[in-house]
Amino acid sequence: MVPYNLMKVDGKAAYLDTGTWANGAIKEARHFGETIVVASSKNENYNHIPKKYPIPIDADYFHCTSNNTIFGTQIKQFPQTQIPVVCDMSSDIFSRVLDFTQFDLIYAGAQKNMGPAGVTLVIVKEEILGKTGREIPNMLNYQQHIAKESMYNTPPVFPTYVSLLTLQWLKNKGGIAAIEKVNEAKAKLLYTEIDRNPLFKGTAAVEDRSTMNATFVLTDESLTEKFDSLWKAAGISGLTGHRSVGGYRASMYNALPIESVQVLVDVMQDLESKV
Amino acid sequence: MVPYNLMKVDGKAAYLDTGTWANGAIKEARHFGETIVVASSKNENYNHIPKKYPIPIDADYFHCTSNNTIFGTQIKQFPQTQIPVVCDMSSDIFSRVLDFTQFDLIYAGAQKNMGPAGVTLVIVKEEILGKTGREIPNMLNYQQHIAKESMYNTPPVFPTYVSLLTLQWLKNKGGIAAIEKVNEAKAKLLYTEIDRNPLFKGTAAVEDRSTMNATFVLTDESLTEKFDSLWKAAGISGLTGHRSVGGYRASMYNALPIESVQVLVDVMQDLESKV
Repeated sequence: MVPYNLMKVDGKAAYLDTGTWANGAIKEARHFGETIVVASSKNENYNHIPKKYPIPIDADYFHCTSNNTIFGTQIKQFPQTQIPVVCDMSSDIFSRVLDFTQFDLIYAGAQKNMGPAGVTLVIVKEEILGKTGREIPNMLNYQQHIAKESMYNTPPVFPTYVSLLTLQWLKNKGGIAAIEKVNEAKAKLLYTEIDRNPLFKGTAAVEDRSTMNATFVLTDESLTEKFDSLWKAAGISGLTGHRSVGGYRASMYNALPIESVQVLVDVMQDLESKV
Repeated sequence: MVPYNLMKVDGKAAYLDTGTWANGAIKEARHFGETIVVASSKNENYNHIPKKYPIPIDADYFHCTSNNTIFGTQIKQFPQTQIPVVCDMSSDIFSRVLDFTQFDLIYAGAQKNMGPAGVTLVIVKEEILGKTGREIPNMLNYQQHIAKESMYNTPPVFPTYVSLLTLQWLKNKGGIAAIEKVNEAKAKLLYTEIDRNPLFKGTAAVEDRSTMNATFVLTDESLTEKFDSLWKAAGISGLTGHRSVGGYRASMYNALPIESVQVLVDVMQDLESKV
């Protein structure tokens, strides 16, 4: 919907390529017009976030993905530019305090930190809309959704309601500032062990490490079977990394308590004691 | 998504205008190309289904809406044509036995007879796709959703799961043939009372009356307050008709038991006995 609503007819857009979701967004944008990739870490299998790239000021907007679930990287500092900044925050929204005024449009699927799959949050500065000269079907037109107060179509009631409950839960815990501290503590606990334990090695550049998804590999692949049986026995699930990275990926979204991270760290130390 | 996937570049589509949703579909189709309204009952406030209209065989497809919730009409006999037939069955899918092979594409929002709002069912003959010459964003491309087995994006898990449970419930009740009998009995019970009771009058043409939504008015509007307090006291909710029709609308989707229809009939007879 972003290119449909923001890319002018005969216009162009600037994208930062930091992983699978960013790349998918680029492919969709190309259906609508010239799509410039300002920087990409694809050749290094997306193990870091590119920095210090120029953003063409004649582009209609700049698009970035704040957190890359598969590669375990996260943008810590967003670039400054005079064109509208669009950010896909699907996998780290509500996880950390940010200056949200630096974004002109934020979108996020609910299914990580907000609620069940089936609803998407969009925050947009209205003044950037309606400037494309493009004919937009109503269902895809942000202005139409705004005019109808997000009820142009029958809304997905259950996912929306559970998102409300999740946000109330977050507020009661002290809000984003409070959960950010917990998220940082969880990430520090795990990354400290990854760096300390000689059996493990992180795959993402240290300065770009995500607080949501930590990716790492065994330094000795022959230990795979032993490690896998240990974490499975400890009740951990879904630790296998995405096939494009291999190794392991620990997801630590808002809902995960620090105790669960400790279970993984214990397993890693257990493995160390057994070899 | 229908015009995006079926209307050729420089092509045209034929639409039957039977109510609010049909009209909405027509407006969206106009974003994509020439949209011919083959027939409309708009001038009679959609109180009947037009019949015996020509369908241009050079159109890319013919679109109709099987049931019109607001006006209480339903297509009983679908037109024969050699071009692909597309049907929006959102409000009466799984309510009656039909020869489903006569349709080339059926779509239906879950929220009436299938499950909670947030998921849409699409049944499509694959051979009608990929013929438009149009560039289609992946998210809107039926072929892409087929290739990814309906998991191109993270699916709305809860509405999909509850739809499964609803369909299992329907199967255990004897399937569509069995629920059709119940739906016909419910509709007969209510329409018989509407026709018998001198205080009420149906608004839809008798031969086009919907088994899902019965629309009717009081013959004496001064009884409105009395009738409203009676049905509210009986525990009935949502009986007020849509503002574009006025009067009353009783919705009798699959999930509503015949006992609930009897409650309304009792209230109607109670009103008669009191005036």
